[in-house]
Amino acid sequence: MTAETATEEVAGEQGIWRIDADRLWDRLMTLACIGATPGGGVDRQALSAEEIASWRTMIDWALSAGLEPSTDAAGNLFIALRGADRDAPPVLAGSHLDSQPGGGRFDGVYGVVAALEVLTTLAGRGVRPPVDIVCVAWMNEEGSRFAPGMMGSEAFAGVRSLEAVRAVRDAAGISVADALDALHAAFPALRRRPLGFPVAAYVEAHIEQGPILEAQERVIGVVTGIQGKKTFDVVIEGERGHAGTLAMVERRDALAAFTRIATALYAEIGGHDDAVKFTIGRLQVEPNAPSVVPERVTLRIDLRHPDNAVLEHLGQRLAALCDSLAAPCQASVTPLVDAPSNGFDPALQQAIAQAAERIGQPHMPILSAAGHDARHMAPLCPSAMIFIPCRDGVSHAEHEWAEPAHVAAGANVLLRVLMPYVGAGA
Amino acid sequence: MTAETATEEVAGEQGIWRIDADRLWDRLMTLACIGATPGGGVDRQALSAEEIASWRTMIDWALSAGLEPSTDAAGNLFIALRGADRDAPPVLAGSHLDSQPGGGRFDGVYGVVAALEVLTTLAGRGVRPPVDIVCVAWMNEEGSRFAPGMMGSEAFAGVRSLEAVRAVRDAAGISVADALDALHAAFPALRRRPLGFPVAAYVEAHIEQGPILEAQERVIGVVTGIQGKKTFDVVIEGERGHAGTLAMVERRDALAAFTRIATALYAEIGGHDDAVKFTIGRLQVEPNAPSVVPERVTLRIDLRHPDNAVLEHLGQRLAALCDSLAAPCQASVTPLVDAPSNGFDPALQQAIAQAAERIGQPHMPILSAAGHDARHMAPLCPSAMIFIPCRDGVSHAEHEWAEPAHVAAGANVLLRVLMPYVGAGA
Repeated sequence: MTAETATEEVAGEQGIWRIDADRLWDRLMTLACIGATPGGGVDRQALSAEEIASWRTMIDWALSAGLEPSTDAAGNLFIALRGADRDAPPVLAGSHLDSQPGGGRFDGVYGVVAALEVLTTLAGRGVRPPVDIVCVAWMNEEGSRFAPGMMGSEAFAGVRSLEAVRAVRDAAGISVADALDALHAAFPALRRRPLGFPVAAYVEAHIEQGPILEAQERVIGVVTGIQGKKTFDVVIEGERGHAGTLAMVERRDALAAFTRIATALYAEIGGHDDAVKFTIGRLQVEPNAPSVVPERVTLRIDLRHPDNAVLEHLGQRLAALCDSLAAPCQASVTPLVDAPSNGFDPALQQAIAQAAERIGQPHMPILSAAGHDARHMAPLCPSAMIFIPCRDGVSHAEHEWAEPAHVAAGANVLLRVLMPYVGAGA
Repeated sequence: MTAETATEEVAGEQGIWRIDADRLWDRLMTLACIGATPGGGVDRQALSAEEIASWRTMIDWALSAGLEPSTDAAGNLFIALRGADRDAPPVLAGSHLDSQPGGGRFDGVYGVVAALEVLTTLAGRGVRPPVDIVCVAWMNEEGSRFAPGMMGSEAFAGVRSLEAVRAVRDAAGISVADALDALHAAFPALRRRPLGFPVAAYVEAHIEQGPILEAQERVIGVVTGIQGKKTFDVVIEGERGHAGTLAMVERRDALAAFTRIATALYAEIGGHDDAVKFTIGRLQVEPNAPSVVPERVTLRIDLRHPDNAVLEHLGQRLAALCDSLAAPCQASVTPLVDAPSNGFDPALQQAIAQAAERIGQPHMPILSAAGHDARHMAPLCPSAMIFIPCRDGVSHAEHEWAEPAHVAAGANVLLRVLMPYVGAGA
């Protein structure tokens, strides 16, 4: 008898188990008040006072359900439903609580609250699974305050050292080290786990952040993988001069050089094919004074493609264009993130599709265009992601929105995908 | 007998009067220490603690020479050599003490210290001229902290209201009103003049901020006028989105729209002819986050041309290009500064040329490519400017440099140009 059939038998006694849709929605809206922006969105950046406040609320909910909160040196938050064998690798489900500066109410926080809802539902039924089932909120997925993001999952997975993570500073000069220490100081009684431990499986629920599910009228996206991503810092060095006196032909204007480079990049890289995503999201001009010819432009490029060969080619082409078009200025390109496309566990993908069918929700396979912490869990253990639609495909914006029915459906799918791990203990 | 010949006779007794070149240079270097930057430049922005410190030093020097400091409601600093008729319109000479954030040791401060040196020389000889001869330091010429600049001379000349000037805020949210009050509070005993009063003549010494005098091996530039200048604020509005999920064709990327617009502006406006100066000196991207498609780009354009008809044409063309190339974003263009070219007083130009000849310095007529406070004095009274070379034509930069011999020559020319106003009192 497999765990799945055992669960079905138990669940069958009272019909199919469901999460509490109202509680889940109320909790999402409660967390949306922590860092709420005037436009209806959320500003709850990594390791901020707002994120600390969201931890406090999460921990209160966890303790009131008999769940066990803990953290690690990378500032990840864990909330465990205790299993019979506490030394065995646990099953993890979650996402992140931090948001973009002008972010929405669902990106990240949905996957964490959905996982907490599953654990709360199981705890409410007195379940004691064979191993711990753990809700996780990874530290700094967004990377908007401390760049680049995914710090918590990367440190957990050993992709980046804790030392490298702690050395990063925000625009105000505050280090991750100091911000992490402040976070931990706010919760002195919280148990500390070692950084990184064996995991049996990882499942992350998230809004799609794209328009496909909505257009196809599907409620559940069975995520096949995450498209590859490269990021680059580019520094263009020119020479400052007086805007009123320096002849145009004598200028080494860094912003004019940027314009030449960006024109080529938008056309050749951004226009390569329908699948490419090319963004210059951050740009800084120095000295940024009205009557001074700019001497330096610093920019961050975000390049994504599902095909690793194409991604590799475009990354090389991008650097070559920066180099060849900068004259009479000089451009230097520093690669930062280099994450190839990855595929998720086929058996978990099948389990997600089956769960959607059992609860009568239309589903489809979908590639994740956005990066997620699950990228770093996939090499460690069977991993998967569940997508739900978001209105007009909008995310990283104050008007980001997901329907309550879809929010509930995704959490119910998560519950059913985790049931085999709950197994005979249910 | 004209004032000029009277002065010549008096001066003839001891040969030609000269300013103290060492004192002048020492004072320039002393002021360069106030707001000194690591790279050898100066950061002494308008109404900053550094500018207040430079006032204190200037006032100390003034009082020790028996000169009379005063100020007005716009934060201009006046230092008077008392004349016989104190109600008659005075003669003014000066420039500004504020610098760009990464400015040099001469831009502005040279004209002020040269004027103070002339007054100190005259006072040391016991001169009592028929009217006050006044050194002036205009408030906020540069416009880097509070934009746009020339606030003090514009308020003095009635070009801009004091209320409009006081309402401007810096990047930290501090208003000119508050900064002015702090300036005046630092000098409670300083006499307050009314804002704006009749002036008999105005002469401003300044570094050229261009390469012409150096290339032509001339020490004195007889400034014929100031080229026209227009500035514009442009706001490009798009829509934010997720860098990893939003398809390129569906984007309204404000930075991509900027790139299209800027490409056309650099080519068509910046490439219009050899005389045009076109600069995008300040640019801000929002939300300026690495993985967010930019929703808004704000930029400041600086456009200059000696021919008013061309300047007018280019200003209109610029706005049309912004409008037509913004799609699918929207661009709005707000004109700020609109200052046509102006010509300086012919008699004063002749006096400058004659003075240079008398002290044996090669001179030439020259158009000022940079804007100066003298622009706003020219409609009020006979006005003129004296240029000296600066190394490689560089200004608004830490390595801005002028030779001590040229610094002295410009001040000696200023002394001689002012001698007719000193007249029989000498």
